[in-house]
Amino acid sequence: MLRTIKLTIEYDGTDFSGWQIQKNSRTVQDEIEKASKHIFKQPIRLVGSGRTDSGVHASGQVAHFQTDTKLTNQKICLALNSRLPCDVVILTAADVSEKFHAQYNVKSKVYRYLILNRKIPCALKRNFCAFYPYPLNVNKMRQEAKCLIGTKDFKSFQAADPSAQYRQKNTVRQVKRINIRKNEDFVSIEIESNGFLYKMVRNIVGALLAIGSGQLPEGSIVRILKQKDRRCAPKTAPAKGLCLLEVKY
Amino acid sequence: MLRTIKLTIEYDGTDFSGWQIQKNSRTVQDEIEKASKHIFKQPIRLVGSGRTDSGVHASGQVAHFQTDTKLTNQKICLALNSRLPCDVVILTAADVSEKFHAQYNVKSKVYRYLILNRKIPCALKRNFCAFYPYPLNVNKMRQEAKCLIGTKDFKSFQAADPSAQYRQKNTVRQVKRINIRKNEDFVSIEIESNGFLYKMVRNIVGALLAIGSGQLPEGSIVRILKQKDRRCAPKTAPAKGLCLLEVKY
Repeated sequence: MLRTIKLTIEYDGTDFSGWQIQKNSRTVQDEIEKASKHIFKQPIRLVGSGRTDSGVHASGQVAHFQTDTKLTNQKICLALNSRLPCDVVILTAADVSEKFHAQYNVKSKVYRYLILNRKIPCALKRNFCAFYPYPLNVNKMRQEAKCLIGTKDFKSFQAADPSAQYRQKNTVRQVKRINIRKNEDFVSIEIESNGFLYKMVRNIVGALLAIGSGQLPEGSIVRILKQKDRRCAPKTAPAKGLCLLEVKY
Repeated sequence: MLRTIKLTIEYDGTDFSGWQIQKNSRTVQDEIEKASKHIFKQPIRLVGSGRTDSGVHASGQVAHFQTDTKLTNQKICLALNSRLPCDVVILTAADVSEKFHAQYNVKSKVYRYLILNRKIPCALKRNFCAFYPYPLNVNKMRQEAKCLIGTKDFKSFQAADPSAQYRQKNTVRQVKRINIRKNEDFVSIEIESNGFLYKMVRNIVGALLAIGSGQLPEGSIVRILKQKDRRCAPKTAPAKGLCLLEVKY
């Protein structure tokens, strides 16, 4: 009997060229497909909820695949983890309806961006936060972030890379919430949206950092959104601060 | 004027052969001495509070050195960090009395050992905790840990490595406290003592894990202490779970 299995996956993106299989690159999808081949004795095709970029982490990425294995879900989990390199872990495996699709059924995704905001860097968490040594006005950031909530055209926050194979024509997305928290020297920005454009979170964080540090004045987010042009927005924040926390269905 | 500078240092021990300079090995002391040479235009001799083993981390290691530099402490900090590899960070630099000695003046040290206690490993924190997939009775561990508090002969918990260049003759130490906390799937063991024998924390953790998992019965700590023989105690816990949190003077 053909089963559809939903996996939740954690990975340290530091040494990966992102989620999606590419020639001559180490990717998370490729590692899981390779490990699966050994366990199920035939290749599987893993469908992720979406890509994550090179260097971006995940504690709740979701993917599905089909198999006729008779292994229990717990066994699938343990068997995959025993074959996977230590920077990818399968947290759960569960049978779902054959209609389930990890990408098309996404209701929303939650990302967290972590910033170390002090003059001195950090050795222990260096791969999991962006180092920002200039003073930040977190209240100003919270105030401006409110202008991003709702159904809006986020074209200005879509990557303008010339290759841009991932650019979307429809750039309207619904941002459900942005929570900015300060905890000692760390500032975390959590964003939930029904979908994200290519590098959208990192571009939003770049703009919020420019606002918090005083490089951009109040009202800038509204102006940038209106301009619908990536060149009007500040630079992209580094990949290593970003983590995909959850995919909701 | 000759100044004595006290440094507090954070490092990710993963890619280090420990604190102390050794031939043909990458060590924290060596990295800081190399960086200092560039800044002070002459070699310095860094005296640490004590060694940490290969793979052991620190968020509060302390060391001192002498210099006649006129740089402010903030400048020393920033200059060292700009020269150091990203897995070592100087958190603070401060002038102290010329009588200060980072090793001889230690009143106590605080170590924390972190254990991931579930069936599924962790990708994001894998270098900073030991993976222990068997059920642990944390209350039993707390109960037995009480027998370690006080001034006792910890000979059974000193490493018995045949090389054993670091073995101490006086094996009496005063353990001031052991706090065992459970936070979701993580168990942390924090130990403060006026001094630690070679691999003492990791050997104590090994014994507490054997007790928590039921491999050793109640009363085992008292028995092991009495035997004063390393061969009577369970195996050493892995280095990567250990972090030197603080050195008190």
